[in-house]
Amino acid sequence: MEILVDNFKDFEQRDRANFVNCLSGFKSLCLVGTKDSHGNENLAPISSVFHLGANPALMGMIFRPHSTPRHSLENILESKFFTLNHVNESIVKNAHQCSARYDKNESEFDMSSLSADYQNEFFAPFVKESNLKIALEYVEHQTLEVNNTVLVIAKVLFVYMPSEALREDKSVDIEKAGTITVSGLDCYHSTQEIVRLSYAKKDKKLREL
Amino acid sequence: MEILVDNFKDFEQRDRANFVNCLSGFKSLCLVGTKDSHGNENLAPISSVFHLGANPALMGMIFRPHSTPRHSLENILESKFFTLNHVNESIVKNAHQCSARYDKNESEFDMSSLSADYQNEFFAPFVKESNLKIALEYVEHQTLEVNNTVLVIAKVLFVYMPSEALREDKSVDIEKAGTITVSGLDCYHSTQEIVRLSYAKKDKKLREL
Repeated sequence: MEILVDNFKDFEQRDRANFVNCLSGFKSLCLVGTKDSHGNENLAPISSVFHLGANPALMGMIFRPHSTPRHSLENILESKFFTLNHVNESIVKNAHQCSARYDKNESEFDMSSLSADYQNEFFAPFVKESNLKIALEYVEHQTLEVNNTVLVIAKVLFVYMPSEALREDKSVDIEKAGTITVSGLDCYHSTQEIVRLSYAKKDKKLREL
Repeated sequence: MEILVDNFKDFEQRDRANFVNCLSGFKSLCLVGTKDSHGNENLAPISSVFHLGANPALMGMIFRPHSTPRHSLENILESKFFTLNHVNESIVKNAHQCSARYDKNESEFDMSSLSADYQNEFFAPFVKESNLKIALEYVEHQTLEVNNTVLVIAKVLFVYMPSEALREDKSVDIEKAGTITVSGLDCYHSTQEIVRLSYAKKDKKLREL
């Protein structure tokens, strides 16, 4: 039975957050790896990463209002370099644990039993247990006046991935890389490919790739 | 075997788009329903919708540069009201076909064999075949100088969904609503729930919900 939900403004705060967080559909799930100038590492799950453009290769992401300490955001603004590490099923609980509030000198790597990995002389730590890891450089940020969330835009520098995940057309089979997805605040999902479809044109039948 | 990809800037344009579009992980997949002041309906797939905040209930989405006609974006700016309709497996080809370039007086509803549905006296059309449909009101937009993409921010007004998808804690089981996800430009995936996890706290073991 179909229901109309138009009273969510009256939900109590936690219920309202549960509800609205689910509406945007399935979300990207990455761990943001950062480091401050004292060498303190930070790792945090983020589900608001989105594609912004291919040339230049840009990603956007949203951070919650900077009214309480946001170590990842602060480290990105300070050091300009960070990593995004796709989460796979074998580290889903470790990734979720990284959302707990830790002090700045406590590394979420240690707290969640994940391994910081430094590669290619890059400043920020990668997550060893992730199969698809991206090195990024900060480009710009702005506070969105509408609700004080912070939009960060960053440039892709290089990527580590399993060789078998890179298709001939240079698209990436992220399912083969084990990447999972998240809905709402706490629900994790693996995926099953349905179909790849050819570029859509007017008056032309779609082909399955 | 793990490979390092740092030469994607040298990929030809189409390959580069394939590659970079996959890096942000699994994406939301919705159909944007709009109508212009002459009554012309438009329907377009969008994979760049993201959660922006629960109170007020806000969503953000990215449109490609407004250098060629963008009917959905123009209709949103003109009429201020639009719908987001989650895509499910039974309409994946119809949804993909809506990405073809049609003239403004050709309705993608007709071209893709989807049904425009008007409910609750809302201005913009919903997609009858979608199981989770959201009515939104435009709040603001800006052109991002970094690459001329357009960020639109909108407020959630009301939602239609299957009653069995609304959990007791007001989170939405979008998998039960049949919602699917997309990776890159053309690959569609269904999902399988792995686990729901309790709110993460320092020094407290996670519970499965």
